[in-house]
Amino acid sequence: MNSKIEFCKIDYIKEKIRSINSDLILIIADLNVWSLYSKVLPLMNIEGKKIIFWKAPDGEKVKDFENLSSAIEFFLSKNVHRKAHLISLGGGATSDFSGMVAALLLRGIEWSTIPTTLLSMVDAGIGGKVAINSPQGKNLIGAFYHPTNIWICDAFLETLDKREWSSGAGEIVKYAFLSKEIGEKITPEVDIKTLIKDCVLYKEQVVAVDFKESGERKKLNFGHTFGHAIEVEYQIPHGLSVIWGILLVDIIFNEGKLIPKVKELVDNLKIDLGDSPWLNKEFPVDRIMNYLRKDKKTTSTDLIEFVVIKEVGKTEFTSISFSEIESKLAENKDVIKKLTI
Amino acid sequence: MNSKIEFCKIDYIKEKIRSINSDLILIIADLNVWSLYSKVLPLMNIEGKKIIFWKAPDGEKVKDFENLSSAIEFFLSKNVHRKAHLISLGGGATSDFSGMVAALLLRGIEWSTIPTTLLSMVDAGIGGKVAINSPQGKNLIGAFYHPTNIWICDAFLETLDKREWSSGAGEIVKYAFLSKEIGEKITPEVDIKTLIKDCVLYKEQVVAVDFKESGERKKLNFGHTFGHAIEVEYQIPHGLSVIWGILLVDIIFNEGKLIPKVKELVDNLKIDLGDSPWLNKEFPVDRIMNYLRKDKKTTSTDLIEFVVIKEVGKTEFTSISFSEIESKLAENKDVIKKLTI
Repeated sequence: MNSKIEFCKIDYIKEKIRSINSDLILIIADLNVWSLYSKVLPLMNIEGKKIIFWKAPDGEKVKDFENLSSAIEFFLSKNVHRKAHLISLGGGATSDFSGMVAALLLRGIEWSTIPTTLLSMVDAGIGGKVAINSPQGKNLIGAFYHPTNIWICDAFLETLDKREWSSGAGEIVKYAFLSKEIGEKITPEVDIKTLIKDCVLYKEQVVAVDFKESGERKKLNFGHTFGHAIEVEYQIPHGLSVIWGILLVDIIFNEGKLIPKVKELVDNLKIDLGDSPWLNKEFPVDRIMNYLRKDKKTTSTDLIEFVVIKEVGKTEFTSISFSEIESKLAENKDVIKKLTI
Repeated sequence: MNSKIEFCKIDYIKEKIRSINSDLILIIADLNVWSLYSKVLPLMNIEGKKIIFWKAPDGEKVKDFENLSSAIEFFLSKNVHRKAHLISLGGGATSDFSGMVAALLLRGIEWSTIPTTLLSMVDAGIGGKVAINSPQGKNLIGAFYHPTNIWICDAFLETLDKREWSSGAGEIVKYAFLSKEIGEKITPEVDIKTLIKDCVLYKEQVVAVDFKESGERKKLNFGHTFGHAIEVEYQIPHGLSVIWGILLVDIIFNEGKLIPKVKELVDNLKIDLGDSPWLNKEFPVDRIMNYLRKDKKTTSTDLIEFVVIKEVGKTEFTSISFSEIESKLAENKDVIKKLTI
């Protein structure tokens, strides 16, 4: 079930694709990535392969039913067969989307992914979680469908802007809480390539023992329950939302004891976090509670499960009622209102 | 991975649902079935369960992206959680569709199915194949997603019309070629309940050894390659299309030697087959070839795999080029034009 993860130079990608055992290659490429990299990575022409190309609207926009239907119908109209192999070129949104296309096309064809953002290198590309969004929330419609290959080329990091860098580094903050080893490596001088490898290997191990997210894997959701709600409510990047999510969980379950640690990681990783989007305004408890009620991590009509970390490297799972969460948010409303690091 | 298959009285269904370990039951019911059975099977009110109900357009109409998106968004808007359990009430189309909803909602929730047609009892309900249709062909968008329970109540057969009966019995003709034991039981006096059980147990065995349809399970596609093309081209019921598909395969790969056997089965099962839809007209080779090129069973740009049976109980898999198939159809065009049994 595991994906083969390789770190490779961008020049080798074509050779990797050429060696895939299929005469038909479907490519889904993020528009922006394609406009920046189509010359360095000329995928339209690969010896011995028929290539069918679908350009994806950039970023999260692609992840809806309309695009899913368009891409699938487009490939079907080109007489795709079951041995066709799909390649995703782009960030986490592109790979979430491409994996859905691969999962559903002819009841599933093989696929591989080339993550092009820091976020997708350390996280979204790995683990077989694929999804589209609903107006009700992010990633609520999806599947578990492992890519065959994940090819990581750090060359793509050269064209990332500060915002994309910060978003990816936000997920690394999460890993720094899950794994003491990763956390300790994050000094101001840390080498990003090594860090990517460490996060990838860490996630790979966790996913290997729990593909369907029934147990251990759930810890990868640390910071994500509030994170997803904040991401949708304020339209801020995923990794930054996760940092705010981690901070909120720490405030309501751990008296904010880990806030200094978050600050240290944010500084060392040169993350441009800014102020909390609700700074000096009222935190929108009702709206956030609404998102939580629609979260995939709810396990009954009344309860939701949170990943809580009180000591780096030690995760706990806490099932808690929605009304209790609401009270906790109310109790801490002054701290939350002034939250900034 | 296997489903639990139970034959039970319609009165027991409510008790079965009550015993599901979830506080939230989602129901997708075929409109027609619901209007006939909502009194006998009052599912809107089950002790200890919250019920969320989505009425499905009847039959194959439901199987498109628009309905998939509507049903999923509807359930999401009702705050569905991961432990929710979905129930499908209807024929094969309803269960194909419901299985897709269950597979994608929150990356997969459990589901169970109550097949209400002969066709879905003997075939479509079992094996975890779920799908929607594309303008390019039937079931081209889908997944493998096993129901937890399949509850078969023969009481539903009482309201089947002749056309639905014949369609279901068409799939039984297929089983009669795959299994000598089933074939030998089909006398004019055969008991349909026994026959349903035999087909179900046979399919269960085949699927158990080959969930993802990489080998043995492919024999269940006997008659389906031409069958699907005929079904779309002439809009005739699935099981009847499969019979025409079996006849075409027999003509082009086996000199029509099994035609008398098909006729015997059709008579004994009291199938209202009628004439072939192209009788005394030209068989539309070009259009049928177009459907074939889009069939999921194609394995490369040039080849398609057929299930061929020359002796009852013995299946062969034949990979053949599209141009050869086209020649064979041309060679046999007079026999095909006059085909009737």
